[in-house]
Amino acid sequence: MKQEDAVNIKLTGDLAQSTLFSGKTQSLRTIIQSGDLSFLMEAHDALSAMIAERSGFAGIWASGLSIATALGLRDANEASWSQVVDVIERMSDATTIPILVDGDSGFGNFNNARLVARKLCERGAAGLCLEDKQFPKMNSFVGDRHPLADIEEFCGRLAAAKHGAADPDFVIVARIEALIAGYGQDEARTRAMAYAEAGADAILIHSRRPTAEEILSFAKAWDGRCPIVIVPTKYYSTPVSAYREAGISTVIWANHNMRAAAAAMFALCERVQRDESVAGVEQEIAPLDSIFDLLNYAELSEAERRYLPARSE
Amino acid sequence: MKQEDAVNIKLTGDLAQSTLFSGKTQSLRTIIQSGDLSFLMEAHDALSAMIAERSGFAGIWASGLSIATALGLRDANEASWSQVVDVIERMSDATTIPILVDGDSGFGNFNNARLVARKLCERGAAGLCLEDKQFPKMNSFVGDRHPLADIEEFCGRLAAAKHGAADPDFVIVARIEALIAGYGQDEARTRAMAYAEAGADAILIHSRRPTAEEILSFAKAWDGRCPIVIVPTKYYSTPVSAYREAGISTVIWANHNMRAAAAAMFALCERVQRDESVAGVEQEIAPLDSIFDLLNYAELSEAERRYLPARSE
Amino acid sequence: MKQEDAVNIKLTGDLAQSTLFSGKTQSLRTIIQSGDLSFLMEAHDALSAMIAERSGFAGIWASGLSIATALGLRDANEASWSQVVDVIERMSDATTIPILVDGDSGFGNFNNARLVARKLCERGAAGLCLEDKQFPKMNSFVGDRHPLADIEEFCGRLAAAKHGAADPDFVIVARIEALIAGYGQDEARTRAMAYAEAGADAILIHSRRPTAEEILSFAKAWDGRCPIVIVPTKYYSTPVSAYREAGISTVIWANHNMRAAAAAMFALCERVQRDESVAGVEQEIAPLDSIFDLLNYAELSEAERRYLPARSE
Amino acid sequence: MKQEDAVNIKLTGDLAQSTLFSGKTQSLRTIIQSGDLSFLMEAHDALSAMIAERSGFAGIWASGLSIATALGLRDANEASWSQVVDVIERMSDATTIPILVDGDSGFGNFNNARLVARKLCERGAAGLCLEDKQFPKMNSFVGDRHPLADIEEFCGRLAAAKHGAADPDFVIVARIEALIAGYGQDEARTRAMAYAEAGADAILIHSRRPTAEEILSFAKAWDGRCPIVIVPTKYYSTPVSAYREAGISTVIWANHNMRAAAAAMFALCERVQRDESVAGVEQEIAPLDSIFDLLNYAELSEAERRYLPARSE
Repeated sequence: MKQEDAVNIKLTGDLAQSTLFSGKTQSLRTIIQSGDLSFLMEAHDALSAMIAERSGFAGIWASGLSIATALGLRDANEASWSQVVDVIERMSDATTIPILVDGDSGFGNFNNARLVARKLCERGAAGLCLEDKQFPKMNSFVGDRHPLADIEEFCGRLAAAKHGAADPDFVIVARIEALIAGYGQDEARTRAMAYAEAGADAILIHSRRPTAEEILSFAKAWDGRCPIVIVPTKYYSTPVSAYREAGISTVIWANHNMRAAAAAMFALCERVQRDESVAGVEQEIAPLDSIFDLLNYAELSEAERRYLPARSE
Repeated sequence: MKQEDAVNIKLTGDLAQSTLFSGKTQSLRTIIQSGDLSFLMEAHDALSAMIAERSGFAGIWASGLSIATALGLRDANEASWSQVVDVIERMSDATTIPILVDGDSGFGNFNNARLVARKLCERGAAGLCLEDKQFPKMNSFVGDRHPLADIEEFCGRLAAAKHGAADPDFVIVARIEALIAGYGQDEARTRAMAYAEAGADAILIHSRRPTAEEILSFAKAWDGRCPIVIVPTKYYSTPVSAYREAGISTVIWANHNMRAAAAAMFALCERVQRDESVAGVEQEIAPLDSIFDLLNYAELSEAERRYLPARSE
Repeated sequence: MKQEDAVNIKLTGDLAQSTLFSGKTQSLRTIIQSGDLSFLMEAHDALSAMIAERSGFAGIWASGLSIATALGLRDANEASWSQVVDVIERMSDATTIPILVDGDSGFGNFNNARLVARKLCERGAAGLCLEDKQFPKMNSFVGDRHPLADIEEFCGRLAAAKHGAADPDFVIVARIEALIAGYGQDEARTRAMAYAEAGADAILIHSRRPTAEEILSFAKAWDGRCPIVIVPTKYYSTPVSAYREAGISTVIWANHNMRAAAAAMFALCERVQRDESVAGVEQEIAPLDSIFDLLNYAELSEAERRYLPARSE
Repeated sequence: MKQEDAVNIKLTGDLAQSTLFSGKTQSLRTIIQSGDLSFLMEAHDALSAMIAERSGFAGIWASGLSIATALGLRDANEASWSQVVDVIERMSDATTIPILVDGDSGFGNFNNARLVARKLCERGAAGLCLEDKQFPKMNSFVGDRHPLADIEEFCGRLAAAKHGAADPDFVIVARIEALIAGYGQDEARTRAMAYAEAGADAILIHSRRPTAEEILSFAKAWDGRCPIVIVPTKYYSTPVSAYREAGISTVIWANHNMRAAAAAMFALCERVQRDESVAGVEQEIAPLDSIFDLLNYAELSEAERRYLPARSE
């Protein structure tokens, strides 16, 4: 990415608001680079993404686990990369906040990773997180078979993904599985430095311990050459003040929308099945009007007035 | 569909459990034709469909509104028919109970309707509901512009859809919008009789009144030539005993899973945003293990033992 | 599209070469507005598109008939709009010349038309041609049932499509079927003026007569308020000098790549089937190396050197 | 696949002619197991597949290289498996002869391979060919980096694919790259025997030598425990009598339709570009009526008479 390639283009009209120029990539870059602790909420479809935006989150984590679950698949690369890209497009079209996509291990080698980065960027994603595993991956919380990728090979995947996206502000996050795989802090740090060198814009250090200890140790020893992102799914009880003190950049709530939705649907289905009625749940679920509002049905009515002949109304 | 075309085929092994021979179409046919009142629960993706099945529902209503909402689109045929077919495939692959698909007005004319019926049947749907409107449609609860289709033309759409599905047990439901459009009982009855004659396996009589009165009037006057299906979204407080007495076949809870999920995600997002923590919600949302159980991760582990070389474990 | 919305953005690096800023929309606009007669060659997949580009054509006509044929479907909106969008993405990714997409009648009403325009623009198309028929359409050369759209309603579709594309240079072409439907020159002219007024960037005047007479009459009487595009499929023997004299802007060779491919494959299949050998055809078909060259396999080898660890080569 | 799972089901009407029961899998099985030499012609889209069928070929080879080329991608798993599945569905819907799909190395591990087999079978493919390489693969005719898969691991992939398809007649072909990778006859034979043991229904022995010598040596030494399939792309000049004598089952003409189409489109584009006219090529390309005939537009006209109200014609 040479700076001398910079060009000045005058954008007119809607183009300034178009996907590429919605500022989503710059926005994610700001979130991750800022000194303030930021939060990304998981989403797995357009509805959950819209709700995360409405609730004030700065950005969205498009979780591989949650998207696979919504599709009825296991978090083991059962969904093809193009199926994932199609889901991300729906999420991005429906929201204005940036989306960081959980890209697993990149869907193959460097060539698949850069193709996926290109497509995600075109469809409106703001960044891509790649983890240092092989393809196909298995969810980090399931089983013990989590062989790590060769460092040099994974650096190639990161660099290729970075070059693959047309937008130079597209964010590449390198996720380190060394702690989960049991390799310890030194291996994690060695990898983090290599990944930053290869072009990663941030390091996601992952852990499945019930406390944040190993994450905080990593953060403490980190020289800050790029921001740190964490995913406190298993060590959820640590207060975020600890992350602020440790200089962590961004916290990802990685699957909570999906798990909230699942619990609510289980409860609803059981009750409606038992009651043979929805009368008891009507007040507890979202009114249709709130759905119509969220999806902006009013815009469609306005557009009908604008584009349809008067007599056909 | 000539009976003399019947053939005997000996099915072996997994084929007996395959999509077409899972008995889903026969199962939906039984549900709709049985004298007992049955219930279909809405689903809009594989996760909600799996939850409906686990909770004991006999079948699933693949709601056009809910699927559009999950995709971030309005219930006005903004999703293409092939995007809907792809969603249905995910839902069907993840469940064993039959799915009745909300096919709106059939995505065009008779030719589009039969193509959609063919594809839905191939992807594992058990039935298709077509409503007597034009393409594109607008959600029945939004606005007042709901022009009805010409009866004869719509009968052609129904017949074409019936002939389009490869499986003769594939269920075609004709949805009547006459009451919603303000045409009254006579028009509704005339249409219902014509649609049954054209091959509809059931009549869905729709209403957006807050009470079931007009639905019950219709049912009372109906000669029973085919079963009646209803959607008590607006008139939710009527006890189902009234439907049993009226001889109604099937009740569709049309969008409740989606609305429960939306409410739960709104509540979760607001709380997590406010608390800057998920500790308070951890006990209220579905544990990851319940997700892994629902998706049958155990099968994947078994398959690894079966298909992977011993040394690579 | 208000000019005061214009913004200045400094583009860096690859972004200047990205899909939206490849200049494809401006390039198509220039082709159509220029005083020189230009030619668009039909393509129906990435291979045919790449060949059109290599052969020096200024742009590509993504033919609805040809794309449907390649998909095994009839030119009657049997392919969904999203299936067509996916084909266009493949074509655009593989080429650098602009693509004008045959969008039939817009896949529904104004709302479907603008959604399709938005998606086509995002996937790299440079323009969209809409014809003044109903949805679903039937190929103009098949049968006699070609009811025209209401003028005012179609103007709404054109305007909505124009506003739907994020890029203000995205080209909207209005295709007039009045001559094919037998309505004569006055109707054609009335429609052309209304469509130009509604925002069409060019008028495609279609004919299925064996001579160019009615096309030339139309052009002669046209006041030039926007460029004229023609499709000399049936009146192919007219020399293009006649079009230059008539001030026509652009000629579309609408289905010739597909028909050449079909003829060649028929000939090959028959000969190989008869000979039980490919030895006789080997010299007549494209060598594999020319395919590898067209697809730029060299770039993949270079990328392997760049991104893969040295030892794994 | 236990025989005791066999069930008897009475199929009625169109179901007997449905995709699964079109007999495509049995038909491919017969082709491959028969003592007569059979020929499969490459196709890469529905049009080429229809032409292969019309020309009398017994079956179709859905070439990975050709499909990638039509999509504008390299034969290195740049297309996702679901994109390939979508292409196969279009080809299968348009034809009645069986399709053997080039599934590369299976798009990942055993789990991806069985998922792809399941989906291909559902979409109408008759068989799947898997090659003993890693994912992602590179075309066998490009470069020298072709590491082979571990035998035991690949046997797991084959078995999983066989069990993944719902139809027990679905054909699994194991493609051996040992000769191309330079490992010699012994390695090839060892692998062939292991793959047959693992459940492969046929062995595809591949070579890129200009003569058939190494293929014929392999065939001569083979004990016939399962049929042999060959791909004479590089050694095209060997007369097929040699294959008959060697007891080879099936010859695949692997990319000739695509190469014929490419050559014809190159020639057409160059000529039309030079002539500024299509008059000179009109007699050499397929007439539109032959396209309408191939796609059976007559059926659509008949269906309009059957399903549309008389007055709207």
